[in-house]
Amino acid sequence: MERNFKLTVCYDGARYRGWQRQGNTPDTIQAKLEALLSRLLEQTVEVQGSGRTDAGVHAAGQVVSFRADTGKSCAQLLPEIRQYLPEDIGAISLEEAPRDFHARLSAKEKTYTYRIWNSDAPCVFQRKYVYVYPRPLDLKAMGAAAEALCGRHDFAAFSTGKKKGRAAARTVHSVGIERIGEEVRITYTADGFLYNMARIMTGTLLEIGAGDRAADDIERIFASQNRAEAGFTAPAKGLCLTEVRY
Amino acid sequence: MERNFKLTVCYDGARYRGWQRQGNTPDTIQAKLEALLSRLLEQTVEVQGSGRTDAGVHAAGQVVSFRADTGKSCAQLLPEIRQYLPEDIGAISLEEAPRDFHARLSAKEKTYTYRIWNSDAPCVFQRKYVYVYPRPLDLKAMGAAAEALCGRHDFAAFSTGKKKGRAAARTVHSVGIERIGEEVRITYTADGFLYNMARIMTGTLLEIGAGDRAADDIERIFASQNRAEAGFTAPAKGLCLTEVRY
Repeated sequence: MERNFKLTVCYDGARYRGWQRQGNTPDTIQAKLEALLSRLLEQTVEVQGSGRTDAGVHAAGQVVSFRADTGKSCAQLLPEIRQYLPEDIGAISLEEAPRDFHARLSAKEKTYTYRIWNSDAPCVFQRKYVYVYPRPLDLKAMGAAAEALCGRHDFAAFSTGKKKGRAAARTVHSVGIERIGEEVRITYTADGFLYNMARIMTGTLLEIGAGDRAADDIERIFASQNRAEAGFTAPAKGLCLTEVRY
Repeated sequence: MERNFKLTVCYDGARYRGWQRQGNTPDTIQAKLEALLSRLLEQTVEVQGSGRTDAGVHAAGQVVSFRADTGKSCAQLLPEIRQYLPEDIGAISLEEAPRDFHARLSAKEKTYTYRIWNSDAPCVFQRKYVYVYPRPLDLKAMGAAAEALCGRHDFAAFSTGKKKGRAAARTVHSVGIERIGEEVRITYTADGFLYNMARIMTGTLLEIGAGDRAADDIERIFASQNRAEAGFTAPAKGLCLTEVRY
């Protein structure tokens, strides 16, 4: 009997071409998981992620759903999955899910974290997970701009994707900005994210924090619906999908 | 006029053959620093570390001394050093030191930290800095053994080096064992460490924690002066030289 599973995974995205399967390349997280589960369960398994993460983006809590016909319990399967995963992908939990559960379609809210190393001091041990941006940052100005990002808006200007108008509407629930030692951490929670949206919001907030752009610029960018009006696309390696809520 | 400098560095030891210069290989921390400083200061610079770290061992606060004839201030030199360091070596601070300061000979006390990932849960983002040892650990037994390690002893049995007798005497000031989430962290402070001593003490404590060896075995190992009586040599990657005090 076919059962439906919810698997939560983490990964270091550095050596992958992102989440999504691409032809026959094994260098995507989806391809790795599908190959492993298909071999383990001796059937073709397709997995759905809560969303695609770009090449180089990390995940601390990506959620994956898949259907499979197996008599094995989750308690049996989880250690088997862990045994065969490469060291840069981890299986956090596995549970059986309701028949209609779908990692992407059922998702209600996602949280992404962007880590900025805002210092000249070395960041040797975190270097693969932070973006080094040592210019002084005005966190108050960034906080004001972060508030302006919240709410339901057309985020077309904050995306390099093709969605426009109603299809580009998203609701950002919160944008938190905190300093933790040498690090400035931005935490975005929204009902969904357009292509590159978290990275372009980050680039825009950094330009505001560095004083290259006014804190009240956000409304104008929204109104333009033009990618060129927003800030730069912050590098993938600082970004991490931390949580998906259902 | 020749001046004496104290440089504090951190490094990810993964891709190096350890601290110490070895013939012409550039793959040691000492060789990297000497090549960089010699080029930057346009003279042959030799650096002294507070101690040698093995291949694969990390440092969060290795102290280095070197002499050079330069008119540049430390405030000028530090950013220049940072600019040319590879991303896995960082310069934390640079200051002028008294003429008789020597990173190794002047050191009074050192602290090493050993990180154990004591869980089946994934440790994707810390994987290069922890040793994965998922067997249940009796921290109380380890704590009793840790106390027995403290004090002045002949540590010959806890070393693969050649020092014996008086030359193998060291004073361990404290051995702290704490659980931080999935991690068990052991912090060793001593007036000095013999070759592999922190890693062999860790292997011995792990065998005691896992129940393979009695907690009161430490006295017997000391008395034997025999490396074969102590525990296994825990892997280099969990070890980090965190602080040197003068």
